[in-house]
Parts: sequence; C-alpha cells; structure tokens
Amino acid sequence: MDKINVGLIGLGNVGSGVYKLLASRNSFFKSKIGLDIRLKKVYEKRKRILGKLSVPGKCIASSVNELISDPEIDIIVELIGGIHPAKEFIERAITNGKFVVTANKALLSQSGEELFKLAKKYNRDIYFEASVMGGVPIIKVLREGLVANKLHAIYGIINGTSNYILSKMTEEKIDFGEALHLAKKRGFSERNPALDIGGYDSAHKLSLLTLLAFGKAVKSEDIFVEGIKSISSVDIQYAKDLGYVVKLLGIAKIEQGKLQVRVHPTLLPNKHPLATVSGVFNAVFLSADLVGDMLLYGKGAGQFPAASAVISDIIDVALNIKCGSGQRLPVLPFVKATRLLRMEDVVSRYYLRFMAIDKPGVLAKISGILGKHHISIASVSQKERRYAKVVPLVILTHEARENDIRKALQEVFRFAVIKRFPIALRIEGK
Amino acid sequence: MDKINVGLIGLGNVGSGVYKLLASRNSFFKSKIGLDIRLKKVYEKRKRILGKLSVPGKCIASSVNELISDPEIDIIVELIGGIHPAKEFIERAITNGKFVVTANKALLSQSGEELFKLAKKYNRDIYFEASVMGGVPIIKVLREGLVANKLHAIYGIINGTSNYILSKMTEEKIDFGEALHLAKKRGFSERNPALDIGGYDSAHKLSLLTLLAFGKAVKSEDIFVEGIKSISSVDIQYAKDLGYVVKLLGIAKIEQGKLQVRVHPTLLPNKHPLATVSGVFNAVFLSADLVGDMLLYGKGAGQFPAASAVISDIIDVALNIKCGSGQRLPVLPFVKATRLLRMEDVVSRYYLRFMAIDKPGVLAKISGILGKHHISIASVSQKERRYAKVVPLVILTHEARENDIRKALQEVFRFAVIKRFPIALRIEGK
Repeated sequence: MDKINVGLIGLGNVGSGVYKLLASRNSFFKSKIGLDIRLKKVYEKRKRILGKLSVPGKCIASSVNELISDPEIDIIVELIGGIHPAKEFIERAITNGKFVVTANKALLSQSGEELFKLAKKYNRDIYFEASVMGGVPIIKVLREGLVANKLHAIYGIINGTSNYILSKMTEEKIDFGEALHLAKKRGFSERNPALDIGGYDSAHKLSLLTLLAFGKAVKSEDIFVEGIKSISSVDIQYAKDLGYVVKLLGIAKIEQGKLQVRVHPTLLPNKHPLATVSGVFNAVFLSADLVGDMLLYGKGAGQFPAASAVISDIIDVALNIKCGSGQRLPVLPFVKATRLLRMEDVVSRYYLRFMAIDKPGVLAKISGILGKHHISIASVSQKERRYAKVVPLVILTHEARENDIRKALQEVFRFAVIKRFPIALRIEGK
Repeated sequence: MDKINVGLIGLGNVGSGVYKLLASRNSFFKSKIGLDIRLKKVYEKRKRILGKLSVPGKCIASSVNELISDPEIDIIVELIGGIHPAKEFIERAITNGKFVVTANKALLSQSGEELFKLAKKYNRDIYFEASVMGGVPIIKVLREGLVANKLHAIYGIINGTSNYILSKMTEEKIDFGEALHLAKKRGFSERNPALDIGGYDSAHKLSLLTLLAFGKAVKSEDIFVEGIKSISSVDIQYAKDLGYVVKLLGIAKIEQGKLQVRVHPTLLPNKHPLATVSGVFNAVFLSADLVGDMLLYGKGAGQFPAASAVISDIIDVALNIKCGSGQRLPVLPFVKATRLLRMEDVVSRYYLRFMAIDKPGVLAKISGILGKHHISIASVSQKERRYAKVVPLVILTHEARENDIRKALQEVFRFAVIKRFPIALRIEGK
C-alpha cells in the first residue's frame, strides 16, 4: 500500500485536531482510500502542547527546517497562521518539492497568486479547504463541483464571530458591546477580535472565493470592507420591523461585465435563505448559470470541522502524489478581462437612518437632497414623534449609486437639524 | 495540451444539455483546467434531436458499439437511463478500457457494487454526480469533502416532483390529485410519475448516498419505501396546526451501531433546516462526527443543473486520465460490520390519525391499546366535535417501535367505532 508521509507545523487548535485524527484514523483512511497516511513529524515550540497530546519523541522535530528538508516527507501542513514566517515556510516547502496544505486565509489572500505560481513552477500544489467555512467543502464545490459553471454571485456569511454577535443583538436586543462580551465568554471570539468584527477575516476568505468562483485574484486590501462595530441595536430593530435581518456578508458578483467584491453589514429580507443562519454557523448562497441558486450551510470554525477540511486536503494531495502529478487542478486566475467595479460605482438599495430634530420641513429637506442626487425613496418611517426633539427617521431607497449616497449624506449632515452623521446600510436580496 | 475525447450515448433532456456545453465551452474549460475536452461522437437514435442540435455528421455514431470500440474515445457518457441496455453498454465500455460517466441512479442502486468491482478490475472509474441532487455536488462532498468523517445521519429531500406536490398541497390546501395535475402541467413530473411519487426514485438516490456516507452497499429493493400517494391534505393541515411540515425524506442513519435506510413522508418541525425547502428544490441535511450539521440546497433536476454535474464528472475523469490513473477514489463499500436495522425495529415518534365515532370512551379505548403496545402518548387533539359522527382524532406519540405501532393500529382497527385504517406518519427532528 502506498505510504504518504505528512509533516505538521503548528499544534494550535486546528493543528491539534489534525494531529488527533492522523493519529487515530489511519486504518479508517486506509479502508476508504487505500493509502497509508502517516504523520511523520510535528513542529511545535510549546512543549506543553506536545506533552498534552502525548506526541512520541521520534515524531517531534526540533525545527521547521527538519520537516521541510526531510526527503521522506511528502506533504507539509502549515497551521501556524499569519503572514511571516508562514510564507517563507511554504515557499521553502515547495522549492524542496513538498506539497502544501494550509488554512492560512490571511496569507493566501495577500500572496496567493505568487505562491500558486511558485507551486506551478515546481509542479506542486497548495490546498486550502480549511481556510473558508471550516468543514464545509466550499473550495472543492467551487473549484471542482461547479467547474462547468459561470458564476453570477456569491453571498457569504463567512465569519462566525460576527454572525454570533449580530444574532445575539437581534435575538436578545442587546447592544454590540454586550454581544461581543458574550462571544468572548463563550469562546467564540479571538482575544483580539479586530479581524473578525472589522470584516477583514471575511475579506480574506472572500478573496479566495472570488479567485475560485470568478477566476480573478483580488487581494483582500483591494476589497471594500465595513465591519459590524458601528451597528447599533436600534438599526437591527428598525430593520426587523421592516422585514429584514442584518448580516455581515461577503459579496462577490458580476454585474454588467464588472466584478464587485465587498464586505459589509447588509439588510436581507426575512425570507432570504441566509436570513435564518444564526450563531456561529456559516453559509454561502451562490448563483451560477447552470445550477441556478445553491446554498451550503455548516459550522464555519472549530477544531474538528477545520481539521476535517485539512484531512480532506491531505487525502486529495496524497491521491495526487500517488498518481505522480501535481497541478491536477490549477487555481491560478483563468479570467483576465473582468474588471473590478469601484465601490463608488456600486448600485444598491439602502437603509438610511437620520437623527433629526422633529419639526416641520425636515423630511422635505432630506428628500429634496436625496432627489437631487438621483436617490429615489421606497419608504419612509418616522419611528417616534417628539416635537423639537431628536428622533430617528428611517428611509429605504430604491437602487442608488454608492457615490450619490455618500454625497447626499454629506450634504444632509451639513443641515443644522441633523444631529449626527446618518447611518447607511446596504440591502441585498428580493 | 492534453486532449480528452468523449463519446455521448443519449441526447435526452440531460444529454442535450451536456452536448450544448461540450460544444460551446471548450475554451472556457481549457482556460480553467488546461485540458482540451472534445465531444468526438454521439449516439442518439432519434434523428429529429440530432437535427435540432445541429450535430455535425462526422460526430454522429451509427451504433453504440461504434463509440465503445473507438480507440480514440477515453470517456463514455451514458445518459439513456434504465437498466437495460445501459448496464451492458457500461460493462462493454469498461472492458474496452473506457472511463464512464453516468446519471443512472436506477442502475447503480441495483447493480452498482457489481459495476464498481468491474471498473476496479479494469482500473477504470464510474462517476455519477448527476444521479443525485442535480447540480449540487453531494456525491463529491460525501466522497471527498467529508472523507475524514464518520457520518451519523443523512436526511434528504431528493425528489423534486414529490416535494413540489407536497409544497403545493401545503401552500394551496389542495389535494394530492390536483397537485399532481399541476406538477404535470408545469413539466415537473414524468409522464409516468410512479417512480417519483412512489418514493422509488428517492430510494435509488438514497442507496447511492448510503454507499458513500456509510460505506455500505444497500440495494434500493432492500430500502423501506412509502410514497406520498396516500398523504391527504387533511393530515398536512393538522401537521401544520401542530407546528410540522410533511416532506418525503430519504433517511439513512446509524443508531446503536445499526444502519437504518428508509424513504417515507415525514413530519418535520417548522424550524428544521429542511422545512422551508419547497417546490422542486432538493436539499440534504447531514450530521457527521467532525463537521457537525451541514446542509446543501439547490436545484435537484433540470437540463443544465444535471449537465453541470455530468461535466464536472467528465473533467474529474479527464484529470484522472491525464495523470494515468483510474481508481483515484474507490467507491466500493469500506465498511463490513454495519448491519441493517429491520424496519420493524425502527424507533420513531409518530403522528397518528384515527377516524372514530365521537362518543364517550373512544379515547380511553385507543390509548389503552397504545399503552398495551408500549406506545406512550405525547399529545392528543380531537379536531372536531360532532356527537355520534366520525371525527378525526390526532395523536402524537413519544418514541415507539415500528412493529408496536403496526400491531397497535391493527388492534385499534378491529374496534367497531374506528371507521378506516388509521394513518401513521413518522416524525423526525427536534
């Protein structure tokens, strides 16, 4: 039976899960795929973790280099995360003839194209299923299952922490700070949640989905990103009254030949398939020319869901090695012509909230300014009436250009009865 | 660039879709996967269809044999359906060294193990993504994406016609006959809908899902099957009042070391992820030890969704051929020990409806008989009160053994005030 040797860098949460599975399921994998997948060596600097997992001494490498230069190791699994030194480890692994499996979305969204080119040059592969949606094989579905399709759109709830916070704010009518505190207490948030709540983690993942779905490499820094920090429970409540839920979405779609890639809190109608995805669950809703609408839903994070994805990559790569072939399925961009739409030119419907002093003529003034900027109003609701006090005025618009919205809001804000900069949230879905 | 030649048998609905895609997307596939996928020859006896698709003369084969014996053809795509002569075509293709792609769930659920063994002997493959859930790559997800997992359960809405009929009965409060008529009118039903509404098509598909998820070959004839023909709109309405929807489910799950595989109308709580899957959409909800709960949802049928799946198989197989390897991923059973649970021993909650003359003592009598058979009652609702007339009495049970339910219903039916054989529907989900 073919034997494949794995070297594992990093025994953090996901790495420990991968270690446990490789240690315990060798014969299960043998019976399913006829390959003997062995964990030959592990590198982890924290001795405590090596002890906790009872890693045998002969499996412990004293340096990453020991793994990467071991001629018997076929696959290097990188699970330390971050840009450096993960990038250098992967580069050295590939130039040493190794295949690579990683969950490093931050790195791939920044340097994916460069690393994939290097892998191509050396006829090796970089697999990264665990980098998006945990155990849900969205990468495989896009790259292989939907290979015949031209994609129209992807909408994804791809950050569990943000979704947990927004779900709690919605269900329990608590504010952002309280919900974040809950997320931390329940272990659903990193110690530093900035990547999650800032939308950057979603952008990293969206960059990878965009590459696979639309054949275009878009670095996460070129993606428009708005996080959930400024979402108030008031807007969630008003959205609910209007039949919407607020979700942090990663959106990539082609409209009139141009690609839009953006991450922001979004109002979705209650009946939308993504509206009921709550807590730490992830989901991707996509639309493609052959298959139509499709939804994938599951646990987006956690030790074993992510380890499941890493193992499926190890097995895929092992099968490639068995048949002597790297680059079975290239991931390099296959589309050149598609251009990115600037955020200013994105057209969307909007939820707008103005905090204005309640007195005659205010609505006329605001709607006049919106009209001047080609923004047409779909509905207006004044949530309270308290004469001469500051009260919220909620307006839903028809489709409008982002830049027009920005300009109109600037202009409205100059108006004396408007007491804070207006809130604008984009609306998706029918 | 590597060139892969395809021979296509059958230009029915799906076959025509595959033809159109192979004819029009050659360069799209080239740019994505670096392979030149060519449709070399087509066999279709209906000249009208060949004309309609403008198939060039040089691509038209005068017999299936001409395709199967063509040394230049690498992949045979079988899309004629049915058992014979599809089985013989596939066997001859494999013994002639061809790789096979098919959507033939009826054949594979009956003779899959035999055909997969033959393919293994000749180091060839049979791919069959289009046989379940149309364009949703559930086969790939189970076989590759979740390869590291031990599955607990699969619940699938895997027949669009039945789901359309049940959805219409629910939404429009019409009866089965009327909903079937609608399905036919809208083109959502075969001329002979027996396979769909009888649950047999679901059983064919469930047999394949069971093989991939649980590693066990269960022929569809060994699956317990109940169709939707006897579902009345009354029960759908009562179920709704109790917070449930009625869905035709294919269920495969392991409980206490034994495998249950069954197809029947099932009550699901409104909040269950499958409850909102309506119309011709398909969905599979699964539970596995590493990834937890997962849902896949999409169009289960139609020319292009199914053709999308066929093309993804062609490309997978082409990539296998390119690297000179059949049997990249075996599909033969990998579990030997698991035993099938007899339907009589299945434990489930039940919805029971009795049509009884409304007079004192009837409930006492029925509940006495249920109690004698170890069936404990969760709730009782008498839907109407019309003294001395036949009225419905709906009982939800706690978990009970199928065989006890059957015996109890037989005994209740012997009782003079019971005017027709009681209705029993199984309940799943929390």
